[in-house]
Amino acid sequence: MRTVYSGLVDEKFIGQTVTLYGWVHRRRDHGGVIFIDLRDREGLVQVVCDPDRPEVFNTADKVRNEYCLKVVGLVRSRPEGTKNDDLISGAVEVLCQDLEVLNPSLTPPFSLDDDNISETARLTYRVLDLRRPVMQRNLRLRYKTAMAFRRFLDEHGFIDIETPALTRSTPEGARDYLVPSRVEEGCFYALPQSPQLFKQMLMVAGFDRYYQIVKCFRDEDLRADRQPEFTQVDIETSFLTQEEIRDMFEKMVRGVFKEVLGVELANPYPVMRWDDAMAKYGSDKPDLRISLEFKEITDLCKDTSFKVFANAAAMPNGKVVAMNVPKGCQLPRSEIDSYTEFVKIYGAKGLAYIKVNEKAKGREGLQSPIVKNLSDEFLNAVIERTGANDGDVIFFGADKKKIVWDSLGALRLKIGRSEFGKKAGLFTEGWKALWVIDFPMFEWSDEENRWMACHHPFTCPKPEDVDKLQSDPEHCYAQAYDMVLNGWEIGGGSIRIHKEDVQEKVFSALKITPEEAEQKFGFLLNALKFGAPPHGGIAFGLDRIVAMMTGANSIRDVIAFPKTQRAQCLLTHAPAPVTEKQLRELHIRLRNEHHHDEQ
Amino acid sequence: MRTVYSGLVDEKFIGQTVTLYGWVHRRRDHGGVIFIDLRDREGLVQVVCDPDRPEVFNTADKVRNEYCLKVVGLVRSRPEGTKNDDLISGAVEVLCQDLEVLNPSLTPPFSLDDDNISETARLTYRVLDLRRPVMQRNLRLRYKTAMAFRRFLDEHGFIDIETPALTRSTPEGARDYLVPSRVEEGCFYALPQSPQLFKQMLMVAGFDRYYQIVKCFRDEDLRADRQPEFTQVDIETSFLTQEEIRDMFEKMVRGVFKEVLGVELANPYPVMRWDDAMAKYGSDKPDLRISLEFKEITDLCKDTSFKVFANAAAMPNGKVVAMNVPKGCQLPRSEIDSYTEFVKIYGAKGLAYIKVNEKAKGREGLQSPIVKNLSDEFLNAVIERTGANDGDVIFFGADKKKIVWDSLGALRLKIGRSEFGKKAGLFTEGWKALWVIDFPMFEWSDEENRWMACHHPFTCPKPEDVDKLQSDPEHCYAQAYDMVLNGWEIGGGSIRIHKEDVQEKVFSALKITPEEAEQKFGFLLNALKFGAPPHGGIAFGLDRIVAMMTGANSIRDVIAFPKTQRAQCLLTHAPAPVTEKQLRELHIRLRNEHHHDEQ
Repeated sequence: MRTVYSGLVDEKFIGQTVTLYGWVHRRRDHGGVIFIDLRDREGLVQVVCDPDRPEVFNTADKVRNEYCLKVVGLVRSRPEGTKNDDLISGAVEVLCQDLEVLNPSLTPPFSLDDDNISETARLTYRVLDLRRPVMQRNLRLRYKTAMAFRRFLDEHGFIDIETPALTRSTPEGARDYLVPSRVEEGCFYALPQSPQLFKQMLMVAGFDRYYQIVKCFRDEDLRADRQPEFTQVDIETSFLTQEEIRDMFEKMVRGVFKEVLGVELANPYPVMRWDDAMAKYGSDKPDLRISLEFKEITDLCKDTSFKVFANAAAMPNGKVVAMNVPKGCQLPRSEIDSYTEFVKIYGAKGLAYIKVNEKAKGREGLQSPIVKNLSDEFLNAVIERTGANDGDVIFFGADKKKIVWDSLGALRLKIGRSEFGKKAGLFTEGWKALWVIDFPMFEWSDEENRWMACHHPFTCPKPEDVDKLQSDPEHCYAQAYDMVLNGWEIGGGSIRIHKEDVQEKVFSALKITPEEAEQKFGFLLNALKFGAPPHGGIAFGLDRIVAMMTGANSIRDVIAFPKTQRAQCLLTHAPAPVTEKQLRELHIRLRNEHHHDEQ
Repeated sequence: MRTVYSGLVDEKFIGQTVTLYGWVHRRRDHGGVIFIDLRDREGLVQVVCDPDRPEVFNTADKVRNEYCLKVVGLVRSRPEGTKNDDLISGAVEVLCQDLEVLNPSLTPPFSLDDDNISETARLTYRVLDLRRPVMQRNLRLRYKTAMAFRRFLDEHGFIDIETPALTRSTPEGARDYLVPSRVEEGCFYALPQSPQLFKQMLMVAGFDRYYQIVKCFRDEDLRADRQPEFTQVDIETSFLTQEEIRDMFEKMVRGVFKEVLGVELANPYPVMRWDDAMAKYGSDKPDLRISLEFKEITDLCKDTSFKVFANAAAMPNGKVVAMNVPKGCQLPRSEIDSYTEFVKIYGAKGLAYIKVNEKAKGREGLQSPIVKNLSDEFLNAVIERTGANDGDVIFFGADKKKIVWDSLGALRLKIGRSEFGKKAGLFTEGWKALWVIDFPMFEWSDEENRWMACHHPFTCPKPEDVDKLQSDPEHCYAQAYDMVLNGWEIGGGSIRIHKEDVQEKVFSALKITPEEAEQKFGFLLNALKFGAPPHGGIAFGLDRIVAMMTGANSIRDVIAFPKTQRAQCLLTHAPAPVTEKQLRELHIRLRNEHHHDEQ
């Protein structure tokens, strides 16, 4: 066995003969002596191979990068002036007494010190990519984070209970991955999108506190930074109120960030109603590192002669919103023009703005293509409401509220996170966590021509809204809560429905007939009949949290063997064709047999 | 929030007003007072509802079994003579001051105290079944066991790294569960049978010590006590020898048994070569609680005139084996006759035996249909070799070795574990762990007409056998090891091949061509080219271990939501038909469209 990891050989070992295992990170010949930087998961140590020991020296002469070695040697101080403070082992070196090549290596297709390797190369040679210190660090931090979650949950009486991976297709969810059954011809399992129904049933079964760090699956197009399989810290508890749940889990996340990164998150978290988050930031996951805020001016626009504003204000669901950007006059004209194109991505037809050059001068001090269409009163009111000062720019969104929120919300992030935003003091580095609560119960789907559940159909409405579920679904709010960090939703949950009659009302609002409900969710409805306790829970996205903690650009950098955007594994070449015999056993065939012949 | 779990209210709480949540386990009206046994996951407490408080009493009057309640009340001593030593709360009761029905319950379809509920009812009403204290205990013991594994592994530098669930179909394995790809028409993912190749690649990537408590999948017929998805404690390490690995993981399992059950396993474990285990017990997972052993007598049978023995001894791969059963003369004749039928299940043609009534009398003291065919010399030699005493019965197996091992091995378990075996002192209660090592590399498959890997094709042969891989595969042994407990294989592993040339030789012995190898395992072969470290590992079957620890009859009793023997979930009715739209998106159709129409 090794004496110690290479990367941990320090002054304590001076004078000792140690056995080390690792890989050649670098090898150099310097004044007739060969130096090998031996690397293992804990870091590097310098191994010195002296020509005095011809056997060792001759072996060392032959080794190349990424050879796997066993080294026996004497730890000694490095000569004065050659210490390296960046390494734990930087004050010592190992005088090699015995050197064994355990396995040679071809020349790697890329240097492990290169930070600009193409992702295709990285995923194809994932084994070598994972040797890079940054990937070692990412996956170890992931482990440390997961264990910190486990420790908290264990200490608070939560029990890890495994729920099935082969389960039933989820109605009302995203697209399922299906698994054909061999035994039951024509039937399919689905891989779980989340253990939602199982964890609720565990509460009905009286386990009281459940958790699981569990793979979930969604067969969706991977436009954003998503993976077909992702990992959730999945939690459910009985008999706690929403406030008690939020309190417990912000404490958990604070503890994890403190333990893993040494970072202090807000205590307590700010809590923001969904309505307020949308009104102020155009987003249900506001990035509070950015100080920019919206001000609604719909009321000011009813009588304006500027049609764009007046029409938006008159529309059902229309809105006019202003966002003042302090020091925005420093933005070059070309930048402001590019914003107009940017907001179009989100459906906006254009982007009105006013540069506030010198507000004391009245409209003369304002610069904008639209000023001529606006009255003095309106301009004064806007300046007052937004608190704009000289040198600021006010941007406007005027459209259906969703378009205004999306477009101006995205612009807020773009400006806030830009170099300009950082220089202008609109952005504060750090970690800004909050709760967003009181989500709407339903959102309208044009595609389905019915109300859909915003969270999922098992979310409990606020008690005062139970009677409005049918009559006014638009204004029903849910006992749902999201944990938001720096503009990402890192966790979300809700109090669940534990009363059969309330569940039936929600299904009815969703236009799910009792027959459908029975067929799709009969097992849950049945469970609610037998003394189901009040319960609720939350699920955290582990991949995202760890990506944020490590500063990774993508969740692919915190997953050992991720898939590409086409859901392929470049290492193993999954998915792949299978044999005709396999398909026959599963009672299926390919629609296009041609594809089968190609294999 | 609750003050404490109901089951944990003890004398410390006397005089306190507590808030409890739980379910009505029993309710009885006794002398005008209503007593409710309130149950939660920690146990029961007695709640007293007095007619003095009409509101409480009237509510209590209406509650029934399995109602979910909130109770506020004063903890007091139970009256003398009514204490219950079986309960933690047995010395106290809670005088109810406020009683709230959180949810009523229908009358459960079975009593939670019933130990003879049909498995169909239990799986259909799994939520209620899981409320039964035995199931609560089983799943909590499972959690405790998993956490004990994690703690050991964490303390020893192992890192939990998640490997993909959507991966590539495994050649050389059992039948895969397949997942059709929507994006890559005609292609399929497979669910992993184990993370074998990924954990090896993590070793090549330098993570050094890996673990994962992970779901694995095999689409096999569930004759035995198996599940389509099962959970493995999966482990891999670099740079350790077989002995170091065995030493570490017997220490782990000893620690887990000590922590969870307070049981001491052997230290160190006995280590038995596979050849010896087969010769002595006819099994590679011998139950060492049973003292019965085989003695080979093939050499004595060459010249015997008893054809059954002489023919078996002369067969290639033939064997004659004797198993002495002390005090076997106490077995009724009918029992011995039933053994003849029993061994036929395993392919034996019959079961020869000799009752040793009085060995001093020579052949006169022996009773058996076959004695007349056997010489005095033979009989004396058999009695000497088996060490049979007066009152014993010697059973014989004579056939191809596999049939002898299987049939006499099964008989050994049957007799050893029977009431007779226990009375006759052939069985010692307790926990008998051992290692079985030096497994053969290959076993011949008539079906495939080639040698197949006994463990898997990545298992390292013993160094002295590398050169015999082609010329004498039958006599090549593997650096493989199984951990066996009370006749069950609870873990198995091996040192893996880390040298490309050895891997090629093994593929060649398995008649896998270089082209096939490249196509199926190219990513592993490629990884071996880049300084792969010596490595090895082990995987433990968590379901089986926990079933043994809890004394459960089936692994289904330690899995929250198991499948039936037809791989169905009776609770959610998975697998189930899916829509035509779903199939189209996956580019597949049913072979028999009729099945589709039925949904």
